[in-house]
Amino acid sequence: MRVLGVDPGLTRCGVGVVDGAPGRPLTMAAVGVLRTPADAETPLRLVAIERGLEEWLDAHRPEAVAVERVFSQHNVRTVMGTAQASAVAMLCAARRGLPVALHTPSEVKAAVTGSGRADKAQVGAMVTRLLRLDAPPRPADAADALALAICHIWRAPAHDRIRRAHAAARREPPTPRPKGTIPS
Amino acid sequence: MRVLGVDPGLTRCGVGVVDGAPGRPLTMAAVGVLRTPADAETPLRLVAIERGLEEWLDAHRPEAVAVERVFSQHNVRTVMGTAQASAVAMLCAARRGLPVALHTPSEVKAAVTGSGRADKAQVGAMVTRLLRLDAPPRPADAADALALAICHIWRAPAHDRIRRAHAAARREPPTPRPKGTIPS
Repeated sequence: MRVLGVDPGLTRCGVGVVDGAPGRPLTMAAVGVLRTPADAETPLRLVAIERGLEEWLDAHRPEAVAVERVFSQHNVRTVMGTAQASAVAMLCAARRGLPVALHTPSEVKAAVTGSGRADKAQVGAMVTRLLRLDAPPRPADAADALALAICHIWRAPAHDRIRRAHAAARREPPTPRPKGTIPS
Repeated sequence: MRVLGVDPGLTRCGVGVVDGAPGRPLTMAAVGVLRTPADAETPLRLVAIERGLEEWLDAHRPEAVAVERVFSQHNVRTVMGTAQASAVAMLCAARRGLPVALHTPSEVKAAVTGSGRADKAQVGAMVTRLLRLDAPPRPADAADALALAICHIWRAPAHDRIRRAHAAARREPPTPRPKGTIPS
């Protein structure tokens, strides 16, 4: 399974492609960062990110895309940019019919280090080890994108089971209310 | 000048097209709402919004797009969806080379009602009056999209002046520090 991980951001958007399957060795296919100038207008930055992601999707043909799930408890300005960049990533993938999964930062940290509260250095060190690299990928956004892809490869089977269960539950007819009872 | 106003949202994305110029009567060209099912996955909802906005841009050929500026002080879940939908709107417009302006909710309210703290009903009433409609557009998202377009038509000249001034300032060489002075 080939997965593109995307660590969304307007200034630096990390991208990493990993091949692997649960319980099998992982291989890095590519890693990089899409950058847009901080003084450019947001709409133009989003267009640049879309173009960059399209190139990555064309070049590496992943079977799934994993994007970091954005929370808004942090810095307001940063969060907005991150949410906007993640929207572009989801859009590019879904437009091609690729499955998109969102993983929270703690899910990703827990997947690669065993702890949901691991720091950047620990994530970088584990990504280096798991992908048998010579040095941690720089900047941290690139390492985070690879960690997202790894997290997705390892979590995907569980993810699919939950999804199928939900879909099956939706297909079942709603339980009819027994006749003659009074709604409480 | 023809402006498409977009009140971004995943569940309801208001769209309204207004023709006009500062100091001249305004005319509504079209108004509507793009809806996506709340139980659909976010990536697919974003694709549906992109498709809908592309249809509106093709059908009405606006010269500019005005999008509500999103703040994250409100409900976290809603804000994320709004930020993502607004990213799609900015992307669709910028990809076509259309100028995109972001206006805050209070700028829009102040523009159409005279008060930045006006309620939905007041905005709806003024939109109805300014566009000489028979009744306020429903739902409120549709009226808000028209209000955004009106706000942009009225503010655009000032907007352009500020933009040109910024661009000129950037072109000027930085002031050299006089020789022999000590930086404070």
